[in-house]
Amino acid sequence: MAMKKKPVTGMKDILPREMEIRDYVIGQIKETYRTFGFSSMETPCVEHIENLSSNQGGENEKLIFKILKRGDKLSSAVSRISEATVPDVSTLTDSGLRYDLTLPLSRYYANNANELGSPFKALQMGNVWRADRPQRGRYRQFMQCDIDILGEPTILAEIELITATTTLLGKIGFEKFTIRLNNRKMLKAMAAYSGFGEADYDSVFITLDKMDKIGLEGVNSELIEQGYSEESVDKYLDLFDKVTPDAEGVRYLKDTLGEYLEPGIAEDLETIISSVDSVKSADFKIAFDPTLVRGMSYYTGPIFEISMDEYGGSVGGGGRYDEMIGKFTGQSTPACGFSIGFERIVMLLLERDYQVPTSKNKVCYLVEKNMPSEKMLEILKKAKEEREQGTIVNIAIMKKNKKFQKEQMEKEGYTEFVDFFVNKL
Amino acid sequence: MAMKKKPVTGMKDILPREMEIRDYVIGQIKETYRTFGFSSMETPCVEHIENLSSNQGGENEKLIFKILKRGDKLSSAVSRISEATVPDVSTLTDSGLRYDLTLPLSRYYANNANELGSPFKALQMGNVWRADRPQRGRYRQFMQCDIDILGEPTILAEIELITATTTLLGKIGFEKFTIRLNNRKMLKAMAAYSGFGEADYDSVFITLDKMDKIGLEGVNSELIEQGYSEESVDKYLDLFDKVTPDAEGVRYLKDTLGEYLEPGIAEDLETIISSVDSVKSADFKIAFDPTLVRGMSYYTGPIFEISMDEYGGSVGGGGRYDEMIGKFTGQSTPACGFSIGFERIVMLLLERDYQVPTSKNKVCYLVEKNMPSEKMLEILKKAKEEREQGTIVNIAIMKKNKKFQKEQMEKEGYTEFVDFFVNKL
Repeated sequence: MAMKKKPVTGMKDILPREMEIRDYVIGQIKETYRTFGFSSMETPCVEHIENLSSNQGGENEKLIFKILKRGDKLSSAVSRISEATVPDVSTLTDSGLRYDLTLPLSRYYANNANELGSPFKALQMGNVWRADRPQRGRYRQFMQCDIDILGEPTILAEIELITATTTLLGKIGFEKFTIRLNNRKMLKAMAAYSGFGEADYDSVFITLDKMDKIGLEGVNSELIEQGYSEESVDKYLDLFDKVTPDAEGVRYLKDTLGEYLEPGIAEDLETIISSVDSVKSADFKIAFDPTLVRGMSYYTGPIFEISMDEYGGSVGGGGRYDEMIGKFTGQSTPACGFSIGFERIVMLLLERDYQVPTSKNKVCYLVEKNMPSEKMLEILKKAKEEREQGTIVNIAIMKKNKKFQKEQMEKEGYTEFVDFFVNKL
Repeated sequence: MAMKKKPVTGMKDILPREMEIRDYVIGQIKETYRTFGFSSMETPCVEHIENLSSNQGGENEKLIFKILKRGDKLSSAVSRISEATVPDVSTLTDSGLRYDLTLPLSRYYANNANELGSPFKALQMGNVWRADRPQRGRYRQFMQCDIDILGEPTILAEIELITATTTLLGKIGFEKFTIRLNNRKMLKAMAAYSGFGEADYDSVFITLDKMDKIGLEGVNSELIEQGYSEESVDKYLDLFDKVTPDAEGVRYLKDTLGEYLEPGIAEDLETIISSVDSVKSADFKIAFDPTLVRGMSYYTGPIFEISMDEYGGSVGGGGRYDEMIGKFTGQSTPACGFSIGFERIVMLLLERDYQVPTSKNKVCYLVEKNMPSEKMLEILKKAKEEREQGTIVNIAIMKKNKKFQKEQMEKEGYTEFVDFFVNKL
């Protein structure tokens, strides 16, 4: 079989320029979250197919890269398939590549809770895989960066997650972004108050989620088209018409929704907003957004998302998912997480031609060909001394076209050149 | 299907204590190699099955985790299998998880050479997967760390790789290790001189590789058993009997092997040894070892390995493989690499109970339950100030058993505690 030069469909080789930014952002992430008391942890990239197919991952489950069984197990699965009239493909696989970090984190916590802090503040960075249709800027392998607080039932978790994440974004040069905040219970109370049945919530929320694209009018016609009563739709949209994206909006809904809203929900939203606002160290806004839905069905409380005008979409989001870990342990554990859109952040920094802050000199030694070994030794010793001072020293054999060689090295950030000639040392 | 708590067979969850060491070692690796002019790069974890099965990976190819095709391609592969009398399992898969970083690096270089430096000094860290039989301390997913210099034909590559790697090992506290050095061409010349046929080299080298376990006597009987002539075996083992593990040994072989040895090989080995020795910044030995074989058939020149007594085996190794990139490009490109046994190094540091050097204070705020939000705000502000000074601040809600809670936090490295009570703030 011929060797293939390109990466597999939908995945990419990462060039040094992008890696420099990635390494820098990873360093800032580890550094920042560490200061907030988060610990690094890791799960295998490969997960049990049973866990991946457990319906915790919504649409993403359809996109799993499945791994073929091996050895005897594969042979017997294949022979069963050859004999079956309706072949069952699922017997061929026992595992797959993780499509997110939340499901593996839940399994990890269930497996290791005794050895973890309580609450456990986790930082997990790693690749995930989704067999999406390849499209510009979206890859089938991408890095996720999740922070989660497990075992903390109060909104201290939400406040710390949002504060840590906005601190990080400020450090790597982002500003003027917005943290949109809502609560799944607020969403539900608004729907219940308007007269929608619980079975219809998901479908109503899918339409609501389009508010920023199609506006109140658009949401209105789509809901009517779907056959919901005009009365409910009117009552529902009237709420969105009147609510403002701030603490006052929260209070308005609290007063209007009355007993449809669980006690404490509105107060907690207000506290999250005022707390995050008071300790913020970057230039951003936090705003209540009753139209924020977040796709995953596992959210149970506050939800939030980072919007950036320059990106025109979300560069991260999260929320509380108090029921997920219980699927593994049988015991419900408070959990709240924030997933940062690592790839989008790197893409934005690349587009801005972001220069990674570095205090290091980059020096290139150009050594004439056939340098005698005792002279070479002198050069190596000089390099050693400079490197010990923290200077980046690249030693290269001088090429015929030295001018072109230097230009190439300048592109890699080398600013200083030292030539070594055989007869001049 | 029930959810599974344990990781998949042979893979592991990494706990915070180990992650702290891993993150530290990763940081030191990136920092050290950067100073030597290496650039980070990355390839996808998934590779074309054609590349993985190209016979560049020796025994490791048998251990590939293969990925199932998707959609229509899967359906048609399955229906072909149901119809076939002898089912061809290979039609079910189009890709697999990489089993090393060298093959993907070669593909990467072939795909991106125009955008890379010349020579290209690469640092690649990432997971690889091998469906080995699970055993203590060996996992099916493990991190590899490879540095390679592509496009440099002279031994400057070998010297820089060995110097950078030994500098790294010194920085993370290793000493008294040995770099064993040989050359595939020296190995072959010794076999040729003794009268072995070229077709027998691989089998002779497999036996030679056991020298450290079974000794000269053992190698002797195994070669005789395999049917090689007593004359050849005697001549061969006499070489090993007389050679010393140093520059003198190299010179002895140069004189003895005569024209069997390509010109320059002995001189290069001597220069590598003396150069590495002269600029070393850690306490280690570099020694010529004519019994060093290195398994992979793709090596074409100098080969080397790190031996550590406390581990009783190799914690890294590499060599020159000038013919591999040509398989992708049709044009041979000088290449030399060093693969560091990242997992072994982490394991050794864990066993030593290595303490990661950190200058940061770790402070824990314990906040009484139901703290009013305006008081909570004061606490958050205080945390913000301390964090901006670089202190690690963890805020936790005070538990009933505060003493136990503090003990737990002490285990996580927190040395300072501040209590906040509702009525005392």
